Amino acid sequence: MAAPGPSRLSLNTATVKTQWTLAQAIEGCARHGYGGISPWRDKLAEMGLKAAKRAIDAHDLAVTGLCRGGFFSAKDWRDDNRRAIEEAHALEAQCLVLVVGGLAPGSKDIARARERVQECIGLILPEARAAGVPLAIEPLHPMQAAERACVNTLEQALDICDALGEGIGVAVDVYHTWWDPKLEEQIARAGRRRILAYHICDWRVPTRDLLNDRGMMGDGVIDLARIRSWVEAAGYSGFHEVEIFSELDWWRRDPDEVLRTCRERHRTCA
Amino acid sequence: MAAPGPSRLSLNTATVKTQWTLAQAIEGCARHGYGGISPWRDKLAEMGLKAAKRAIDAHDLAVTGLCRGGFFSAKDWRDDNRRAIEEAHALEAQCLVLVVGGLAPGSKDIARARERVQECIGLILPEARAAGVPLAIEPLHPMQAAERACVNTLEQALDICDALGEGIGVAVDVYHTWWDPKLEEQIARAGRRRILAYHICDWRVPTRDLLNDRGMMGDGVIDLARIRSWVEAAGYSGFHEVEIFSELDWWRRDPDEVLRTCRERHRTCA
Repeated sequence: MAAPGPSRLSLNTATVKTQWTLAQAIEGCARHGYGGISPWRDKLAEMGLKAAKRAIDAHDLAVTGLCRGGFFSAKDWRDDNRRAIEEAHALEAQCLVLVVGGLAPGSKDIARARERVQECIGLILPEARAAGVPLAIEPLHPMQAAERACVNTLEQALDICDALGEGIGVAVDVYHTWWDPKLEEQIARAGRRRILAYHICDWRVPTRDLLNDRGMMGDGVIDLARIRSWVEAAGYSGFHEVEIFSELDWWRRDPDEVLRTCRERHRTCA
Repeated sequence: MAAPGPSRLSLNTATVKTQWTLAQAIEGCARHGYGGISPWRDKLAEMGLKAAKRAIDAHDLAVTGLCRGGFFSAKDWRDDNRRAIEEAHALEAQCLVLVVGGLAPGSKDIARARERVQECIGLILPEARAAGVPLAIEPLHPMQAAERACVNTLEQALDICDALGEGIGVAVDVYHTWWDPKLEEQIARAGRRRILAYHICDWRVPTRDLLNDRGMMGDGVIDLARIRSWVEAAGYSGFHEVEIFSELDWWRRDPDEVLRTCRERHRTCA
């Protein structure tokens, strides 16, 4: 398996969220030879949609995803997801990533939260299809089930996709899924049709925080080459998007160092 | 569904591990009307096996489990598990809980670690059967996959049980399994034959540590009554074992307050 080149690399802007604006991240991607970018919507709102689109096009970057829609546990989920679809359409994003939300406030009923996720996605899916925006359900690690996403395995996400039909798939993030005994099987099940994005980073030992202590590729215990081989065997030939939330380390470093390190580790470890 | 009485309650000694010796925990259980106790082996070694057995019998407590065997990633796993089986036999424990261990040192091969777990259990199972000690695989939360247990779902644990036959089952701990979309289905699959222990506590929001921030029943988001109903529907009628690792809260309190609170919350929330 050949080492992947930087043109296959995409920067999820959360990786440098404390250091750079979206304008700076776009220029950083171009400077370091990345082929893609995946912006978060707060950064996009700061920069403005049109300015962002112009800058992204000027540097010929692919938009490998827009982060994020979902959070169906929130009161304004309907309008917020409508806007997210519009923005993803305007950016020609390859997908809108759905972080589906956790339990309803005050509720312990995770089964109901899960039903609701499927119902809500069913309601926004026609708009997404009409806009040509594929929806990518991102299963999050079970430790984030209560607060961020009650979809926690690829199997569960694919069951939802199967129930809803076309225009929907998954974002496979190694951080959230590496531990899953059924990962290989479910990646094969997903296949080219359902894998809309592939996110990389690493799992640190020890992990010091449930949200913001992700590791740089190569600094943890995830067998990235093996998981990539599964994703490729399933027919995925898209970008490798680096997404590292790192309060204690990478968010404190010079962002050019971060992008250089991602590029190097992508070549040697991913 | 009737509220469970304290005679169905068992104290996992980790719940008061910073405050009490095993001798004190045994007396505490008796004083608060608990019907069972589940000791950790370090506390047992301090007290001595014979003294512990005498004190447990004097108070007519059931030993709902011995914590723990497993850790097949450790060098001395063979001898250590042999001793654990002997101790569980001497205490007439209802099961020996297996925390199976994570990745081998320096390894990223979780698939191999999992194969090894099944091989190692296969090697100790004849001794456990001969000693009349049921082995209980405890699937741990996926956030503990790298360091403590590479068996992370009930489905995976039951697949191992099915491969190995009689004399082995599972410990269902709500903390580790509450998020699992297949929990109800897999509890039903396990049935009375495979469910050897049922552990309770709660999942705090937010959770501040990946190991030692469990909540008291009722202080988190786990629907304990619902999970208990599944376990009972599967035919389990054994003890409810409270196991709370709580560096920031319950390990700092007066242990009699802890046992009183467990008893009260068991009645009202579990």
